[in-house]
Amino acid sequence: MKLTTIRLTGGKTVAARVDGDTAVELEGFADVGDLLRRGDLTAVAGATGAAHDLDSADLAPVVVAPGKIVCVGLNYRNHILEMGRELPEHPTLFAKYPEALIGPRDEIQLPPESDKIDWEGELAVIIGQTVRRADAEQAAAAIAGYSVLNDVTARDYQYRSTQWFQGKTWENSTPLGPVMVTGDEIPDGAQLVTRLDGEEVQRTGIDDLVFGTVALVQYISTIVTLKPGDVIATGTPGGVGHAREPGRYLQAGQTLTTAIDGIGELVNVAVTEQVTAPAARDA
Amino acid sequence: MKLTTIRLTGGKTVAARVDGDTAVELEGFADVGDLLRRGDLTAVAGATGAAHDLDSADLAPVVVAPGKIVCVGLNYRNHILEMGRELPEHPTLFAKYPEALIGPRDEIQLPPESDKIDWEGELAVIIGQTVRRADAEQAAAAIAGYSVLNDVTARDYQYRSTQWFQGKTWENSTPLGPVMVTGDEIPDGAQLVTRLDGEEVQRTGIDDLVFGTVALVQYISTIVTLKPGDVIATGTPGGVGHAREPGRYLQAGQTLTTAIDGIGELVNVAVTEQVTAPAARDA
Repeated sequence: MKLTTIRLTGGKTVAARVDGDTAVELEGFADVGDLLRRGDLTAVAGATGAAHDLDSADLAPVVVAPGKIVCVGLNYRNHILEMGRELPEHPTLFAKYPEALIGPRDEIQLPPESDKIDWEGELAVIIGQTVRRADAEQAAAAIAGYSVLNDVTARDYQYRSTQWFQGKTWENSTPLGPVMVTGDEIPDGAQLVTRLDGEEVQRTGIDDLVFGTVALVQYISTIVTLKPGDVIATGTPGGVGHAREPGRYLQAGQTLTTAIDGIGELVNVAVTEQVTAPAARDA
Repeated sequence: MKLTTIRLTGGKTVAARVDGDTAVELEGFADVGDLLRRGDLTAVAGATGAAHDLDSADLAPVVVAPGKIVCVGLNYRNHILEMGRELPEHPTLFAKYPEALIGPRDEIQLPPESDKIDWEGELAVIIGQTVRRADAEQAAAAIAGYSVLNDVTARDYQYRSTQWFQGKTWENSTPLGPVMVTGDEIPDGAQLVTRLDGEEVQRTGIDDLVFGTVALVQYISTIVTLKPGDVIATGTPGGVGHAREPGRYLQAGQTLTTAIDGIGELVNVAVTEQVTAPAARDA
């Protein structure tokens, strides 16, 4: 099953089931997060509703306001090994706020305060059940599905201190979508591919994660309860712009495409953020 | 003005105005966060309602579920200088989730996975207005008031990776309260004092912050919109247990007291968390 979230007029959104090229509204659920919190994926499998052409629909972040977005760093084996590092014993975790999220076809805002906005294509896990200290079976059952996220990062702010958070949660930076798919939709050997104006900049099989999706749900839920609609961004493989010589960063007008086989793709144009008074500051 | 949040029966909470030893219910507002989002501090100054004895009331976190809890590290001048470090150019920021919060007299849960739970007494800023890229005047106006928070930290998890977040957001670890006061309630020279079973372990004037409260609102709001009910934990001074030789950590049965002049005190007993199946794991 594939689910998405569509923007309607008047600032409202609605969850929808994707049937081929059509998105069928699931009336009564404001987004996929709301559906996971209050609804039942089985019950909506056959629901009928207003239909939209998927390609032309105005898509919101598939979960509009996750209670938590937990991000994982340094989690692709090939990238860690090629950097000459040892595989980590524990996941590296940090947070991102919902205000960072944008829809799968929205513009990425390049804030005037940063000139080092970089890409990080990632597999996102979306939680469907409330779990704390989940064992492997509970963790697997708690995963409602998967989506695509680009953990767009202001590298200059990321490295202003030891803690990356301030480079990770810029408003309107982080596309999530276009759909949430259940695990059966993802083929063996599925590839995560990031492109900049069509040029491939990242490509890795999502089976190369050091800490897999079930292990991450177990680990994070040991610390804090995971709840329906929470999102885990599982980390990015090699190929980010900041690791290149010279560094490459998103420029206004460039199109960032982030795709995972069986899920779909994010297509986001970078634009210079228009800041009104008070004037932008480089605090 | 002093405001607090009281737990009622049936899992409900209500905001209240503190008049001396009495808390007067502000009916219609579920907590101080709800009041800041929908209400008007001026309007509730004279409101009447059911009265509670403040000392015996069951107090919730003063904001029960902040949209954001932004924490600041390395922000007391005396502590940085005594460690032989230079003053930082930029704030160090990280996040904590609302599930970490407990009331000002609740028990701190010591999870079986960690044996290095440490204290970090802090001044908390509570936001009252929506601001992005606030200038100094807007930032000052966006501060609704101040509270006390103890950023209780699992040091072993904090240092499992470079990112502190996983040591900072353990469920039911972090007291916030007992009240939110407006700035006029805080005397010049107000001291932040943390005690462990009555022994003073931290004492510093809150005027020793490297990045003051207005500067923090400006800085954070440059990155992401701050909204009513959001909380900024402004950092802890010297005296934490992990910096001692040998390290000292919270033990079950100990009472942690965190006080700021003009605001009030948190009094929290540490208890061993009772974990039900699945068994605790040291993942």
